[in-house]
Amino acid sequence: MPKIIIANTFSPEILSDFDTCTDEDFLASGHYAQGLLWSAEEDDVLVLPTAPGPDFARYAARLMGLDPSRVHVTVPERGLMPEGLLSPDTLLDPPFTARLARLAGPAAHVWPYYYDRMSAEATHALGLTRSTPGFGYVDEGGARLLNSKANFRAIAAGNGLPVPPGIATADRTTAVDYARQALASHGAVMVKQDYNAGGFGNEIITLDHQRRTGTRNATVLAHHDDVHGHFDAQWDTYTNGGRDRVVIELYIEDCVPVYREMHLTPAGVEAFGHGEMLMNPAYDGLALPGRAGDRSRNPDFFDGAERIAEVVHAMGYRGLMSVDALLTPSGGVLFNEFNCRNGGSTHIHRIGQRVIGGDPLADRTVLVRRIPAPLPFAELVERLEEQGLAFDPGRRTGVVLATDVAPDGKVQYCAVARTAEEADALERLLPAAFGHGRKAA
Amino acid sequence: MPKIIIANTFSPEILSDFDTCTDEDFLASGHYAQGLLWSAEEDDVLVLPTAPGPDFARYAARLMGLDPSRVHVTVPERGLMPEGLLSPDTLLDPPFTARLARLAGPAAHVWPYYYDRMSAEATHALGLTRSTPGFGYVDEGGARLLNSKANFRAIAAGNGLPVPPGIATADRTTAVDYARQALASHGAVMVKQDYNAGGFGNEIITLDHQRRTGTRNATVLAHHDDVHGHFDAQWDTYTNGGRDRVVIELYIEDCVPVYREMHLTPAGVEAFGHGEMLMNPAYDGLALPGRAGDRSRNPDFFDGAERIAEVVHAMGYRGLMSVDALLTPSGGVLFNEFNCRNGGSTHIHRIGQRVIGGDPLADRTVLVRRIPAPLPFAELVERLEEQGLAFDPGRRTGVVLATDVAPDGKVQYCAVARTAEEADALERLLPAAFGHGRKAA
Repeated sequence: MPKIIIANTFSPEILSDFDTCTDEDFLASGHYAQGLLWSAEEDDVLVLPTAPGPDFARYAARLMGLDPSRVHVTVPERGLMPEGLLSPDTLLDPPFTARLARLAGPAAHVWPYYYDRMSAEATHALGLTRSTPGFGYVDEGGARLLNSKANFRAIAAGNGLPVPPGIATADRTTAVDYARQALASHGAVMVKQDYNAGGFGNEIITLDHQRRTGTRNATVLAHHDDVHGHFDAQWDTYTNGGRDRVVIELYIEDCVPVYREMHLTPAGVEAFGHGEMLMNPAYDGLALPGRAGDRSRNPDFFDGAERIAEVVHAMGYRGLMSVDALLTPSGGVLFNEFNCRNGGSTHIHRIGQRVIGGDPLADRTVLVRRIPAPLPFAELVERLEEQGLAFDPGRRTGVVLATDVAPDGKVQYCAVARTAEEADALERLLPAAFGHGRKAA
Repeated sequence: MPKIIIANTFSPEILSDFDTCTDEDFLASGHYAQGLLWSAEEDDVLVLPTAPGPDFARYAARLMGLDPSRVHVTVPERGLMPEGLLSPDTLLDPPFTARLARLAGPAAHVWPYYYDRMSAEATHALGLTRSTPGFGYVDEGGARLLNSKANFRAIAAGNGLPVPPGIATADRTTAVDYARQALASHGAVMVKQDYNAGGFGNEIITLDHQRRTGTRNATVLAHHDDVHGHFDAQWDTYTNGGRDRVVIELYIEDCVPVYREMHLTPAGVEAFGHGEMLMNPAYDGLALPGRAGDRSRNPDFFDGAERIAEVVHAMGYRGLMSVDALLTPSGGVLFNEFNCRNGGSTHIHRIGQRVIGGDPLADRTVLVRRIPAPLPFAELVERLEEQGLAFDPGRRTGVVLATDVAPDGKVQYCAVARTAEEADALERLLPAAFGHGRKAA
């Protein structure tokens, strides 16, 4: 049955930092939302904050073998929210929802990026509360508690799964005492806002200047006693104005961050993707499967992620979720967080299923990064074809462009190869193919 | 294996109104904590904020057939918390925890009234983290999310269980809009703080002066538009200073509030009690089983409560929990909230198991209320015996005093009889037995 895909990629409900986001952040989110094209099937209705470029839309449809005229892309008028975001006032405007309902038909269900209040109200307005799986749960705001890092720690620990040593607390004294002792004994801690996404809201605090991966933000303190002043200054940010808990964990060196993506359906848990998050020092891309490997290599990670998904399924949530973990240098696994929504790897796994085909996690390596693209999208595609780098469905290797050229001038690619070495080699050809380093004409 | 029972009956972590509680509230809580005596077994260690009266302690031990010298009642020194409450500074004082550890031995587990931070730290200090079932979950603060009325609505709805029509929201405009429309169409709403206990934090808002049961607090507004001013004035209270959501539900007339108590053990869910909450207009006592009846009479209630418990078990919580629901006049059931802690009926069901014996929920009615007791405890017991009203283990009928005389001069009793009519009749004899209406000598 058709989906109404609501691309609410940047919901203030789960972004503690929403108020400090810039116009660039919002525009980037609007661009990122277009990745949901890779989740669209014929007869689906896609509600985007900004229209995808026609060349990118045709390209994606061609690679997926879709008739682009049968995917209904709709963009509500700009509303009260910043440009790049869907806005409740225009999304829920009755003529607009009536149009969506006509396009999708009565058998459709609603598929938001994240189940926030706006998408729940849209589901009511569309009359699709019964056909949307698990709507009762998300209509009561239940998705939020499944995007809390503090709640995750409890559920993981409650199921015997290891989490990084740490605490979740709403009490500043407790936070300072813990961070102070942890810094004194351990040298580095990771501080996380309870609700946030995409590495926003994470901060590493250290006593040295050694670079560590995991976040954009690092604070170097001269002495562990300085955490007192640091937490005084940052407490409002860390706790979202006193509303949420803060999570403080020991920073474990040299871990490999991995994730598993799952679809919770009325029938159960369907795992459909896993991979490694590439850090440089913050999130820089993906390797599929990368060091996430497979179940035989990391059975505790695969089993634990699925156990969490079963718990979340029992709670009543239906939709996409991911579980993140760290593979430790000693061969262990530390479970980190869940995100019950679409995520930054979802469209890549859709490309895996719908473009690469076969079982790419078993017989391919896919490297995913963003690269400056000083050309219009259609020309990027031409260059790839000229250079013999474009994805070849027969060989199931080559480069797929996963996004249009973004407002920051970058494009996201998937370099698909038979081995990690070949994927590396393929990736290294891209800057030259896109004309990096040449003089402008 | 022995338990260390920590009587933290009044944890600020789940009482949104903690800051506005009076000294009387705290003293009442300290008295109420003594009810945990009914959960104590030989070799257990009971940590109470105030010592039980020796007559009451002997009475309870006698009725349960316990050797009172083998139940270790300990009272830490008065700490920073108000009188009537356990205090982290004295409970966690190393000499005190060392004494507890010696008394309980290495095979003990910790059994708090509610799993708050203080009791988790005590479990660490006692070295009993491994022997305490489900400690991983509660050590991460997981009990709190299982005492949220908003989270309950999501999990219940996610499992297809009906909840009262309503919303949970952190947004004042959403709250006002909902309450306004609900009042206009329906005439009465129930407003609940997300975290609270014992009916604290619930408020009925109506447009008429008709008395309704369910809470101590009722607000009568002249017009539904007045909700705006009401929510402006009460928003901080309703949302615990902006930290929590508020729950607003339609007030459904003539419902019967019922509960089911369950113990979540490593082996699974053991249901051990159910009953009706007597309202006058706020909580006034219990009837076991009252109109909660049995599974054949209310299968949806029994099954639904156990389904919720299974979900909570899957999340990793171990310990006591209750699920509250409303039986509607039309024969339906609306699930209300869960409380993952001991509760106001727990000690009554312990009396049922350990004093009444047999299967009291099947072949007895127990009425539980509080009554002025103008005599010392030992004399109350004498009066009951003189009048032939005291509980008779052979007949399994009669009156059990469930508490000592409280700071407010009342005692809680269980009137145990074969039928509801006989329990009513027994209850009516108590005022005279206790000398109500007589002149003081």
